[in-house]
Amino acid sequence: MSGAASAAAFPPLREELRGLEPYGAPQLDVPVQLNVNENPYGPSPECVADIAAAVAAAATTLNRYPDREFTELRTALAAYLSRDTLPTRGFEVRPEQVWAANGSNEVMLQLLQAFGGPGRCALSFAPTYSMYPEYARDTVTTWVQGRREDDFTLDLDAARAQVLEHRPTVVLLPSPNNPTGTALPPEAVAVLCEAAASYEPSGVVVVDEAYGEFRRAGTPSALESLPEHPNLVVSRTMSKAFALAGARLGYLAADPRICDAIRVVRLPYHLSAVTQAVALAALRHAPELLGKVDELRVERDGLVTWLREQGLEVADTDANFVLCGRFADRHAVWQDLLEHGVLVREVGPEGWLRVSVGTPQEMETFRTAFRRVREAGTAPLIGEQP
Amino acid sequence: MSGAASAAAFPPLREELRGLEPYGAPQLDVPVQLNVNENPYGPSPECVADIAAAVAAAATTLNRYPDREFTELRTALAAYLSRDTLPTRGFEVRPEQVWAANGSNEVMLQLLQAFGGPGRCALSFAPTYSMYPEYARDTVTTWVQGRREDDFTLDLDAARAQVLEHRPTVVLLPSPNNPTGTALPPEAVAVLCEAAASYEPSGVVVVDEAYGEFRRAGTPSALESLPEHPNLVVSRTMSKAFALAGARLGYLAADPRICDAIRVVRLPYHLSAVTQAVALAALRHAPELLGKVDELRVERDGLVTWLREQGLEVADTDANFVLCGRFADRHAVWQDLLEHGVLVREVGPEGWLRVSVGTPQEMETFRTAFRRVREAGTAPLIGEQP
Repeated sequence: MSGAASAAAFPPLREELRGLEPYGAPQLDVPVQLNVNENPYGPSPECVADIAAAVAAAATTLNRYPDREFTELRTALAAYLSRDTLPTRGFEVRPEQVWAANGSNEVMLQLLQAFGGPGRCALSFAPTYSMYPEYARDTVTTWVQGRREDDFTLDLDAARAQVLEHRPTVVLLPSPNNPTGTALPPEAVAVLCEAAASYEPSGVVVVDEAYGEFRRAGTPSALESLPEHPNLVVSRTMSKAFALAGARLGYLAADPRICDAIRVVRLPYHLSAVTQAVALAALRHAPELLGKVDELRVERDGLVTWLREQGLEVADTDANFVLCGRFADRHAVWQDLLEHGVLVREVGPEGWLRVSVGTPQEMETFRTAFRRVREAGTAPLIGEQP
Repeated sequence: MSGAASAAAFPPLREELRGLEPYGAPQLDVPVQLNVNENPYGPSPECVADIAAAVAAAATTLNRYPDREFTELRTALAAYLSRDTLPTRGFEVRPEQVWAANGSNEVMLQLLQAFGGPGRCALSFAPTYSMYPEYARDTVTTWVQGRREDDFTLDLDAARAQVLEHRPTVVLLPSPNNPTGTALPPEAVAVLCEAAASYEPSGVVVVDEAYGEFRRAGTPSALESLPEHPNLVVSRTMSKAFALAGARLGYLAADPRICDAIRVVRLPYHLSAVTQAVALAALRHAPELLGKVDELRVERDGLVTWLREQGLEVADTDANFVLCGRFADRHAVWQDLLEHGVLVREVGPEGWLRVSVGTPQEMETFRTAFRRVREAGTAPLIGEQP
């Protein structure tokens, strides 16, 4: 060919993708990383040893394809989720109600491949997770961006009206919301599932509980509502509470017919034997890992209090991160903190920054850095005299 | 909701997906599994130990997201591919020319997400890999099924004419082809890359070398043609030659602009830290694993000879499988073999069966079973008196 493909036309990327940047926060080597809501605690030595032993066992038959139905993992995930449904509602999540993939983002892509697509739309309420429109784009689903209130909560009457107006086949409802940390009001699941079931083709309502384990006491999980709403999907991830971001395991619970529908679009053998083994090993260490979650919730609440004492606006948060502001120049604050060795995330509405909750030591470093940045006078809040 | 979603309309699966069966051969527990072209040799104890150690090291930081660019793995894959280009053509494959994902099938999906989509078409030549139309379907790309000759080879004039007629933005060219084992003629890459570069938007030509390492002496790899054709993509997998089907690692080599384009549609952190560690460990054992490939090639050639001695038609094969026939009732033969503990694949044009190449012991079991089935008289060839 030797240049027959001209510079302008090569490669033949789809028009709507040209010039777009790949999704992802900067991966910088910084002492205190509070930018991607990772769990700051690595697995314990016992958990690492269990993971290594599980992979060694799986490795002897790696020449064979993995169990396409990942039956053992689905069973273990169902048992784990039943902790949130058995004590409160008296039912167990069954293995056939569980589906998993390489990270929540593959779960979401599969949901949109099955239930979205050309001529259909997906709806969420902004500000919210910035990957949602990308899932829609990648599945040729029309994206409708609904609105949250100024305090990031969802007005249910307004939300219901938006659902009925646009008739989405997929509604994405993170709870807690990213990047604001806002949990859904308890009535939201029933109101929006009923709304989405009232038209044809009906909609599935995906409550994205990626950060669900960090919710405050009294905030229910949408899992409790599964028996009442066949069109409800509750997604979770092992990235956050299970401190397993590097292993990429997202999953969901829903009516078994929804899992069966996803099986039509999933790539065969999408979940490797190694991923299955690692996830199973980590699930055996759930009590240890959830103990760390409790510590992080305490640290999170302390951070909210401290930031409010500094005069900042802080969104109520049920997650392992805090959205605070509002800064006259948030990029300058982000940059100043980075120079103090602290990486936070420039995300959400203008003026706000998101801070992941780290270890007590990391949060002390953050507070010291933040205090210095504020004292330098280069990080005024909106309306504040510099 | 309580039943508000009627049985007919729930779940709201896309119309074109309703009633479809998920892709995948039966996963049966049978002594001799010759149905999914797996490598019969598991990793050596040294390789297993290396994999376990690599995962143990990675596990200590699994709370962090993986390297989104998997730089170390890309470098190792590039070095591996350079074995096929340096001696013959004097150039190395560079890391920025390499992309990887969870199995070749995710690589293919990403290629079609980037370069296919609504209003565009993808073309291959049947009989060929039955997942190709599914990748097109899942990316809303029009699927055009071209034709091979009766002996499964590609007539280049006819293939070129089909490309120019349909103007696909993605051409899928397995070499060796699955399920027939047929390698592309050496001139195919130049002819079809030039054809696909001659219209707008131009096409990328994906030579799927999933079974490339099994090719016979004298069959070139399309990798050798990378410098001449910016629109050439050569895909590979670690599932077959590297005996790593359970680990799910597919990859490609292409112009760096093609890799950059894929980055726009890939899910962030799609390749787990564990997958990266396992693949790197296996690559360190390439000499051992490729030694087994040589044994399998000898076994494959022996199987072709033996089947022809039995009076069967056998397609010339550069892969680790053999397509043979033609049976008057291939399902009956498949079933009879299964009853002898041998699982083969009912795939490809009517009358043919595909047999993966196993260990010498497994092939002896296959031959014994096959002989018995034939002697029973219930497995006549087409035109043969029962």
